[in-house]
Amino acid sequence: MGTGVNLLSSLAHFGYETSILTVLPDNPIGKKAAADLRKLGISDRKIIYQEHNIGSFFVELGFGPRPQRVTYQDRLSSAFSKSKVEDYDFEKALTGVDIVHICGIALSLTDQTRKAAKKLAQVAQARNKIVCFDFNYRISLNSDIDHETMKKRYQEILPYVDIVFGSKRDLTDLLDYQIDDETELYKKFCVEYQINFFAGSRRSIVDGEKYFEGFLFHHDKIYRSSKHKLNIIDRIGSGDAFASGIICGLLEKWTFEDILEFAVANSVLAQASMNDTPIFTKEDVFGYIDSDGSNDLIR
Amino acid sequence: MGTGVNLLSSLAHFGYETSILTVLPDNPIGKKAAADLRKLGISDRKIIYQEHNIGSFFVELGFGPRPQRVTYQDRLSSAFSKSKVEDYDFEKALTGVDIVHICGIALSLTDQTRKAAKKLAQVAQARNKIVCFDFNYRISLNSDIDHETMKKRYQEILPYVDIVFGSKRDLTDLLDYQIDDETELYKKFCVEYQINFFAGSRRSIVDGEKYFEGFLFHHDKIYRSSKHKLNIIDRIGSGDAFASGIICGLLEKWTFEDILEFAVANSVLAQASMNDTPIFTKEDVFGYIDSDGSNDLIR
Amino acid sequence: MGTGVNLLSSLAHFGYETSILTVLPDNPIGKKAAADLRKLGISDRKIIYQEHNIGSFFVELGFGPRPQRVTYQDRLSSAFSKSKVEDYDFEKALTGVDIVHICGIALSLTDQTRKAAKKLAQVAQARNKIVCFDFNYRISLNSDIDHETMKKRYQEILPYVDIVFGSKRDLTDLLDYQIDDETELYKKFCVEYQINFFAGSRRSIVDGEKYFEGFLFHHDKIYRSSKHKLNIIDRIGSGDAFASGIICGLLEKWTFEDILEFAVANSVLAQASMNDTPIFTKEDVFGYIDSDGSNDLIR
Amino acid sequence: MGTGVNLLSSLAHFGYETSILTVLPDNPIGKKAAADLRKLGISDRKIIYQEHNIGSFFVELGFGPRPQRVTYQDRLSSAFSKSKVEDYDFEKALTGVDIVHICGIALSLTDQTRKAAKKLAQVAQARNKIVCFDFNYRISLNSDIDHETMKKRYQEILPYVDIVFGSKRDLTDLLDYQIDDETELYKKFCVEYQINFFAGSRRSIVDGEKYFEGFLFHHDKIYRSSKHKLNIIDRIGSGDAFASGIICGLLEKWTFEDILEFAVANSVLAQASMNDTPIFTKEDVFGYIDSDGSNDLIR
Amino acid sequence: MGTGVNLLSSLAHFGYETSILTVLPDNPIGKKAAADLRKLGISDRKIIYQEHNIGSFFVELGFGPRPQRVTYQDRLSSAFSKSKVEDYDFEKALTGVDIVHICGIALSLTDQTRKAAKKLAQVAQARNKIVCFDFNYRISLNSDIDHETMKKRYQEILPYVDIVFGSKRDLTDLLDYQIDDETELYKKFCVEYQINFFAGSRRSIVDGEKYFEGFLFHHDKIYRSSKHKLNIIDRIGSGDAFASGIICGLLEKWTFEDILEFAVANSVLAQASMNDTPIFTKEDVFGYIDSDGSNDLIR
Amino acid sequence: MGTGVNLLSSLAHFGYETSILTVLPDNPIGKKAAADLRKLGISDRKIIYQEHNIGSFFVELGFGPRPQRVTYQDRLSSAFSKSKVEDYDFEKALTGVDIVHICGIALSLTDQTRKAAKKLAQVAQARNKIVCFDFNYRISLNSDIDHETMKKRYQEILPYVDIVFGSKRDLTDLLDYQIDDETELYKKFCVEYQINFFAGSRRSIVDGEKYFEGFLFHHDKIYRSSKHKLNIIDRIGSGDAFASGIICGLLEKWTFEDILEFAVANSVLAQASMNDTPIFTKEDVFGYIDSDGSNDLIR
Repeated sequence: MGTGVNLLSSLAHFGYETSILTVLPDNPIGKKAAADLRKLGISDRKIIYQEHNIGSFFVELGFGPRPQRVTYQDRLSSAFSKSKVEDYDFEKALTGVDIVHICGIALSLTDQTRKAAKKLAQVAQARNKIVCFDFNYRISLNSDIDHETMKKRYQEILPYVDIVFGSKRDLTDLLDYQIDDETELYKKFCVEYQINFFAGSRRSIVDGEKYFEGFLFHHDKIYRSSKHKLNIIDRIGSGDAFASGIICGLLEKWTFEDILEFAVANSVLAQASMNDTPIFTKEDVFGYIDSDGSNDLIR
Repeated sequence: MGTGVNLLSSLAHFGYETSILTVLPDNPIGKKAAADLRKLGISDRKIIYQEHNIGSFFVELGFGPRPQRVTYQDRLSSAFSKSKVEDYDFEKALTGVDIVHICGIALSLTDQTRKAAKKLAQVAQARNKIVCFDFNYRISLNSDIDHETMKKRYQEILPYVDIVFGSKRDLTDLLDYQIDDETELYKKFCVEYQINFFAGSRRSIVDGEKYFEGFLFHHDKIYRSSKHKLNIIDRIGSGDAFASGIICGLLEKWTFEDILEFAVANSVLAQASMNDTPIFTKEDVFGYIDSDGSNDLIR
Repeated sequence: MGTGVNLLSSLAHFGYETSILTVLPDNPIGKKAAADLRKLGISDRKIIYQEHNIGSFFVELGFGPRPQRVTYQDRLSSAFSKSKVEDYDFEKALTGVDIVHICGIALSLTDQTRKAAKKLAQVAQARNKIVCFDFNYRISLNSDIDHETMKKRYQEILPYVDIVFGSKRDLTDLLDYQIDDETELYKKFCVEYQINFFAGSRRSIVDGEKYFEGFLFHHDKIYRSSKHKLNIIDRIGSGDAFASGIICGLLEKWTFEDILEFAVANSVLAQASMNDTPIFTKEDVFGYIDSDGSNDLIR
Repeated sequence: MGTGVNLLSSLAHFGYETSILTVLPDNPIGKKAAADLRKLGISDRKIIYQEHNIGSFFVELGFGPRPQRVTYQDRLSSAFSKSKVEDYDFEKALTGVDIVHICGIALSLTDQTRKAAKKLAQVAQARNKIVCFDFNYRISLNSDIDHETMKKRYQEILPYVDIVFGSKRDLTDLLDYQIDDETELYKKFCVEYQINFFAGSRRSIVDGEKYFEGFLFHHDKIYRSSKHKLNIIDRIGSGDAFASGIICGLLEKWTFEDILEFAVANSVLAQASMNDTPIFTKEDVFGYIDSDGSNDLIR
Repeated sequence: MGTGVNLLSSLAHFGYETSILTVLPDNPIGKKAAADLRKLGISDRKIIYQEHNIGSFFVELGFGPRPQRVTYQDRLSSAFSKSKVEDYDFEKALTGVDIVHICGIALSLTDQTRKAAKKLAQVAQARNKIVCFDFNYRISLNSDIDHETMKKRYQEILPYVDIVFGSKRDLTDLLDYQIDDETELYKKFCVEYQINFFAGSRRSIVDGEKYFEGFLFHHDKIYRSSKHKLNIIDRIGSGDAFASGIICGLLEKWTFEDILEFAVANSVLAQASMNDTPIFTKEDVFGYIDSDGSNDLIR
Repeated sequence: MGTGVNLLSSLAHFGYETSILTVLPDNPIGKKAAADLRKLGISDRKIIYQEHNIGSFFVELGFGPRPQRVTYQDRLSSAFSKSKVEDYDFEKALTGVDIVHICGIALSLTDQTRKAAKKLAQVAQARNKIVCFDFNYRISLNSDIDHETMKKRYQEILPYVDIVFGSKRDLTDLLDYQIDDETELYKKFCVEYQINFFAGSRRSIVDGEKYFEGFLFHHDKIYRSSKHKLNIIDRIGSGDAFASGIICGLLEKWTFEDILEFAVANSVLAQASMNDTPIFTKEDVFGYIDSDGSNDLIR
């Protein structure tokens, strides 16, 4: 699960203990993946080893007008996709955990991964954990599931989560909200599912230059970051880097303004780096914020 | 299909026109695989593009006492494994073809790949093509299919083939022949299925040194190569290199002795090279034979 | 012939069957080059193998103010430069061919390569093939041949070609036309040699930013593309990518506007990619056009 | 401390929880080293970060008659060498630990590292941990300390250890024992310092072939492994791989014969692999033992 | 000494004979370093080999908002840092030399390297060599030496030098000049220490774009270059590239305007290249100046 | 000239000042080659820069039965091959030189390179330099020159040389001596051309193992080294490594036995290393001799 790894790695580099709950193949490939996770600072203690395959994707790097291209392999034959609800011991996995992040991709894979995600949310909520959820909805990857089914899957898990990452489009196109005003839209969504925080990021182009910005909705109000200019090497994982920044800031109870600047800065740095997994420390991110992105040598 | 690629690449480097009939994913990965096939000299005209995945395997190189290790990924979710009999137009694919090689791995994947292999053999025989078949039977890869089913799958295809590559063990353990004498065993097998040639290779250890040798059975008689000392960099594909040598020699109507020396030499060279796909020309193989493997510089 | 390979590779990736008529050394280097051509999708069936050398060039990558630098090796000792007219069987080579592209570099190498180029043009015209020709005239590479000789070489081949790629400067400086107005100039040139299409591209700098644009002259009229901003990784081959786009568009009978946008887009993408050989599909190029170059992730 | 990392990595791959107590620089280099340790399966929880440098060594690979060459950098300016006894909280570090391994190199660096090693041994013994110690004495690296000082340093720590790795030469040349008979020599040594196990390995050449063997002394008796032929890629760390095998076997209470075969096999595999850190599992080592080193492909 | 190597390499590529006076470890690492110096065109004849260590630094490349990060290792344990004044034979080293460059870093390392630098300056001045000196003062690397000591070290060497590279800040913050007007400040400084030329460079940001410019102070007057836009790959060594340009221009007695444009151009090219050591020839630098940085292909 | 570079590099690593007299292209490729020569410790002061090409060769590594393969490019179009006698100022080039080595390959390239080699030998002899000469005669590279011409070319240069490297076959097959007894043969040859030393090396196979040995003929007597077992990574340059060892030993006036062991050891080490240019110091070679090739770790 690339997106989960990105988020956990970033939080690990911010100083948090992180642990991934997933399934890897019970062979040298699975062991190699676990070693790479440990290297990123993510504990491999909760990993389940079974089956033979791991999902993979191939990236063709882009540059300027040439887009980056990602080709997925084996999403449905991976050990994770083939896992069943009963493979997981959620009670045990949550011991000692304060906050849980669930990636929406689990809702698009199989009926079992969807059920496992929902059960994890339920168990976590029942045990008073903070539950985060990222829509991570990509139409191109879900062309074979009809809209109503997909929508229902998301609706079933949302009552159990506290912090949601997504976009306006997730609410209007996937959940079919018919509200155009963003404040009203997010308010309606958060009230309906008793969601505490709704946050998201967006890339835009002004005069041929690319910019990145984020928002955080809480208690009737949208807070917005400033726009930051992008220099992109690898834009995959930009949302994960933003989400890790938001989670870190909320846990440390910064002002919403500071949280948003931090999350956007983390994502801007991640997009200026090869590989999608962020490895920036708080010091790195604050260094970017303090120098307004103009510092180009640290020694 | 690694084994088929190895065989066709070797024949292409011997000067034959070769073409692969397989299924690759309809995405940049499939296109990349086709480009690599063309680079090896194998025509990509008959490739079918559909589905999303390609099978892959990871190799940890061995050295001396450290064995080479292969881990397979996605055998059953590959575009080839998911192909159906009706995806292939065998009549058209055989136009202009003199000889067809079918890899026994197709019998172990799915019911559809097995049926496709059998139908290809039938159509080819009906159109008077020479049909080759390689047992390629590996128990470790077929632990989930029971012995009788597996045996039956092989028995069904054998009546349609002319040249078979395999080992004594394939006949005794898979086909359940109870004959210990090799000549009698191979004779019985060839008569029963009207097989023209049965050939195979074997690796052995004498005083800690590894050797390679081959046999060719035809009309009541076993012909055997001399033993060649091995210096192994990558031993995967040794059987394919041997088989290509046999096919080349039979097509060129050399003496059985010459055919065996050529096939064994091709395999010895392939095992002394990184990567499992042989790229030796006839000139390379004859150079090895003529120098008795002692030539260490060509300029 | 780098420029010919670029053009054929691009057309091959647009879906056309392409074949190169050239001479490669009869040794492992020539075989390796042929394998690389096949990988690009260019047929190696018409390649002649003789002599020992291949031309090569070394590239030092540029960045921002640092220019890319190319150093040529062995242009005149290459197997192609040493080839003679009688080495080629043009009649046979043109069998089944609809369109022929001749690179002007052949006119600068030796008397024999010049004669071979001219004869190919003649035979092709006589057999009603469409004949394309690219000036590809670089003064720095021809310092040892006097102006009148060079001019005459170009004048001799032009009567046999239909589509010409070049620049205003090729007409004024090499062919000595004394006309400043572009329309009048191109008209005069096309009428004089009965040329159907004359096309070219140009890079310009506005406010420190680099741009790329192209033109196509046909029947008294110049059609011009819009200007596209460049992000350059490797600018070698930009003209070849433009030419392949024009040829593709003319063959598919698009509007001249569409042809120019396509050709320019293909070149802009090629300049944003390492290596001079374009490997973009029509889908890639249309994706760039549709997104106005702002799409930065495909998955 | 390369040797400690080798031992802990090997034990981690045998399934034990391992943790390293060392000092790394408090900068990106130290963090990178910790990430690499985690990747090897060694916990980085007990690492102390201070100072700026890390020791490093450069290896020129050998082959056949060309010896491998190691050049050390910065042994004395490394964060570990500059550490002081009071930097370590041994009581806390030993919490939850069953067995402690101390590398003799600490005795050769500085007075403080020597004192820290001794104190760790004392605290560990007092808390009933099993204490292992490896002489790791290399004259070439200690040319600046006089014999008597060096001898005394070793004599001071030995009373606190249970399992010792070393060679006959360590006892005769460093500790000045004047006994030639190995049994008598080891007996005297073990009795004098109340050592439970004394083990070591040795490389020898017979008819130009290199062999490896080991011994284990316990209660008046020397147990010896058989000799194993070596194919060397990288011989650094051969002693560490042997020591990890011995420790594993003693912990699992195998017969002394089995322990020795296992330890020697682990070392033989390590020497056939690039890099000095062993990453073989028990399954890998038993696979080598069972096949007598003749298995050359696992799939 | 990276900064000295950068300067000498650049001068070597401008056509000057250069030689480095430094200390390298007496082991394969020192020999490798000397070979790399020779490759850059710097003579290794005056290198002293002793001790075991070499200083090193690790660079994490930056991109856009992500700063480049440098981590130093072993500055104080390097063979150079451990050298003593008496290790050098300055009289002999200066034989045949016209100009000497001393890097200010020597003042920050040890008392001995400081004394050696001063003595070299004295001996060189006494023998009528031109003496250059570069402040190269970085507060972050000298946190352990108090301001007055550091200031005094610089004040002691300045009377012996003719050409100084530094910044306004070096004069106000390190030497405690209380003058704000640059002309007055530099005048006072040059008069006080009888300095002939004082030069420096500066990077600035305008509207998010980075620029580079330089100044040269001589006889009461500041000469300033124009501002040049930067495209940075690796900005380390930008000052060294500027200084080499100034030295080259002064030696060749160009106008101050030409000298400054040349020095800035050399630095702009160096910052657009990987690695901090400049390898541009005069022809490269003039090519950049002549094309105003817009030439992007040389062939 | 690969063979000359090998010899000079080896002598440079033995502590001698070496300088190459050759022609390199006057472009970035020539400058790069010169930098690589300096790195090897060979002075580039006498190199002449003109023309555009450099000779190159491509090596396919061998292993065990797979032979190493070398493909030459551009031998005759290289700047060296195109050089003329008058391009060289031999008088000046020999200033300060004690010993000159001439590679026989110059006799096979062009009439001009042959004349240059002869003239260099003449001038050197006239100025009392020691002149070495290596037959370096390879029939496969000289198929286009008839035997008598080739023979005459060698006969013309031999009167001017003192130390000759070659083989029995060079004397019998090239120079047409009809003597089978080696002592008589070498005596006749040395007397005829007043040659002081004739030396050569030979590779042989015994029981499938490869061995290397050398001889040195002086004053009626053949001295022979012992046979040394070979472990080959790259056998190109084995003769050059042997020749450098002989030259070093003769210059240092060791016993003939010691000279031969040293020369053979240097060659055995070179063949166990990637790349054909030897970089072993005397210490390395003596280390091999002293340990009888059994030392496999230096630290």
